[in-house]
Amino acid sequence: MITACICTIGDEILIGQITDTNSAVISRALGKAGVMVRKMVSVGDIRQEIESALTEALEEHDIVIVTGGLGPTKDDVTKNVIYGLSGSSGYVTDSAQLEIIHRILSSRGLDILESNLKQASVPDRCEVIPNRLGTAPVMVVRFGEERFGHKAVLYSLPGVPFEAAGALDDVTADIRKAFSIEKIYHKTIMTYGIAESALADRISAWEDSLPSFVRLAYLPDPLKGVALRMSVYGNASDAESVFSVKTAELKEILGDAVYAEAEMTLPEVLGGILRKSGKTVCTAESCTGGMVASQLTSVPGSSDYFLGSVVAYAAGVKENVLGVPHEIIDSFGTVSPECAAAMAEGVRRLTGADYAVSTTGNAGPSASEEKPVGLVWVGISSYDRTETVSFNFRNDRIRNIERFSSSALNALRKFIASSENI
Amino acid sequence: MITACICTIGDEILIGQITDTNSAVISRALGKAGVMVRKMVSVGDIRQEIESALTEALEEHDIVIVTGGLGPTKDDVTKNVIYGLSGSSGYVTDSAQLEIIHRILSSRGLDILESNLKQASVPDRCEVIPNRLGTAPVMVVRFGEERFGHKAVLYSLPGVPFEAAGALDDVTADIRKAFSIEKIYHKTIMTYGIAESALADRISAWEDSLPSFVRLAYLPDPLKGVALRMSVYGNASDAESVFSVKTAELKEILGDAVYAEAEMTLPEVLGGILRKSGKTVCTAESCTGGMVASQLTSVPGSSDYFLGSVVAYAAGVKENVLGVPHEIIDSFGTVSPECAAAMAEGVRRLTGADYAVSTTGNAGPSASEEKPVGLVWVGISSYDRTETVSFNFRNDRIRNIERFSSSALNALRKFIASSENI
Repeated sequence: MITACICTIGDEILIGQITDTNSAVISRALGKAGVMVRKMVSVGDIRQEIESALTEALEEHDIVIVTGGLGPTKDDVTKNVIYGLSGSSGYVTDSAQLEIIHRILSSRGLDILESNLKQASVPDRCEVIPNRLGTAPVMVVRFGEERFGHKAVLYSLPGVPFEAAGALDDVTADIRKAFSIEKIYHKTIMTYGIAESALADRISAWEDSLPSFVRLAYLPDPLKGVALRMSVYGNASDAESVFSVKTAELKEILGDAVYAEAEMTLPEVLGGILRKSGKTVCTAESCTGGMVASQLTSVPGSSDYFLGSVVAYAAGVKENVLGVPHEIIDSFGTVSPECAAAMAEGVRRLTGADYAVSTTGNAGPSASEEKPVGLVWVGISSYDRTETVSFNFRNDRIRNIERFSSSALNALRKFIASSENI
Repeated sequence: MITACICTIGDEILIGQITDTNSAVISRALGKAGVMVRKMVSVGDIRQEIESALTEALEEHDIVIVTGGLGPTKDDVTKNVIYGLSGSSGYVTDSAQLEIIHRILSSRGLDILESNLKQASVPDRCEVIPNRLGTAPVMVVRFGEERFGHKAVLYSLPGVPFEAAGALDDVTADIRKAFSIEKIYHKTIMTYGIAESALADRISAWEDSLPSFVRLAYLPDPLKGVALRMSVYGNASDAESVFSVKTAELKEILGDAVYAEAEMTLPEVLGGILRKSGKTVCTAESCTGGMVASQLTSVPGSSDYFLGSVVAYAAGVKENVLGVPHEIIDSFGTVSPECAAAMAEGVRRLTGADYAVSTTGNAGPSASEEKPVGLVWVGISSYDRTETVSFNFRNDRIRNIERFSSSALNALRKFIASSENI
């Protein structure tokens, strides 16, 4: 098994002002290429700490990916470390990257600064994989067995997340060439609405029945629910047959809590269902403040089925724009099944969509008598019926809004599924 | 200087299916307490790897914080490692945590499972800080100098992010007691609208003028812009005086690109401005799909000034709900200053808010002749005028939507500031 360590460099990571998202993106790509990430390390923009982190990583792993610590505000500290590690004796300018730098900056109408040009200059013992999306190239250093006791390759990626992500196809292709890699196969089952520990209890007998060569991971996410991921190293046909049997068993146990048999999100699954049936959807949101619409429109091509949304935060907007009757708000309050139903029906009337989903609740932090923190009512309406359902969560404001939104999308998914069965 | 290492445990981190957000939250809290985080390490749910990571961290640092690797689906692998490291000879049940477990589960109407009760059981050489938000307590192990050559304390936090965050006040209070800590002072200046490298160029002389005891960090974030953070270890009055002089100089250089002199977000700053002036705001969104509203409502108490939003994804919703004249869409297209202006005016009419901000553009991935990917028109309207401004970005869909949203909020902020100056 080829193993890897991901090193991210930057004081901003250690100070905690940015969350390192590169590591997760890189490890997903490596995993798909059959490389197992065994460790992630973050250190600051300090030369000797980077050097010792990279050296230790190269001693322990076949592949080391480093991001960050490049660029004008960093004094290119990572590049200096790579210069030393690679035993370079000078810098050379990479002409392909230089051309990209000129093209990118002039297409953006920006002046080309000295500091930009410097990015095409790399230690002379590095190979370069050009970065088409940005100014800092990928640097590759190959170490023979004499250096760390085993063959090792170091890849230095730009720190900007979309540039790092954009370089990964080239990097994994290079890794495939450099190493003869055991394949790894994954099958991910997406579930929503059952908490991780309850899920573990419910499928414990199924889990015990998994063959020993299958590794199972529980992957909870506030927006996506709990993903169950089976992994098999080695044989494709073994993997295929065990995945198909075990997936069928799991769906039998979990029923409609399973919403996809691949790594997908609720908005993607809903998008697929709506596009297939040629139906459209709209939302009316109070406590979720636009996040349900925002999740739906995060999917490319969502304009095919998403018409629009009314975020009715103020009671006046609920009445005047969505047409929620004043008596409903007076008698039942805004956080009520009656209001959720009227909001969903109102926005469906307004936009002419086939389905509408609404949310009204209290994400916190302040509670009131009729509006406990964490309570949300969801309304769902189609041409022939309107349903409401409530959920209770106990998180902070942001997390509650996320759960409210995903619960609303999941309720819509179930509503559509049950409509089709009628 | 007291230093710390944060260790996060979990195959789900190494597989890249979840992004580790705990490390950033923990390091911010430690930084405020005057502890310098020097390293972050993530390893999988494998006993010997956790053991060696924790041992190495304890050898190198005064404080080690570990999260994850606890709970029923993990076989409590972190707890087993702590048992060994602490030299425990048995497990004891912590009665305070046991009571919390009973209270939490029964208040949620859940059955109390054996696996839940087990969480109150800890190695007998650990101290416990009860976790009021969840079932797994914080475990504390104190090591004398004889063990690692210096005094060291290990804190094991629950892996659930809001539980880990909730425990940090108690943990930093314990750290303050256990170590005599040099204070650290930060001053953060928030800027929006200038790219990091251009910013670095623009303030390079100012940066050179900083006294040597001030450390400067550039912290770029797609939603927040670039934060400039000055840090001073040691003396409060030195810090205060240098911060006030250098902040004033920076504002002189950067003008209205500076939107806050503390760690704040654009929605928080806007909320403060609107609340102070007693004004209200609404949004009309096309390409941002609800994210502008979602950002505004992420702030607690935003119902005081945010009335609502119309997400007009379909052209029909732009016309029928927002009242954008058909001729505008026909003559200029939906991605145009004319449409942005009509959307902003329309939603202001509809909701009666004092200010409206609108977005219409193309986040990608597909371009068309009049709608290049990355182009957005923003409209801003008040009782006496409507302005429009366009922005161009070159990112993927999600990143473009984020930048469109923040640019719209920043444009609104500048619009309000200029109104007040009239």
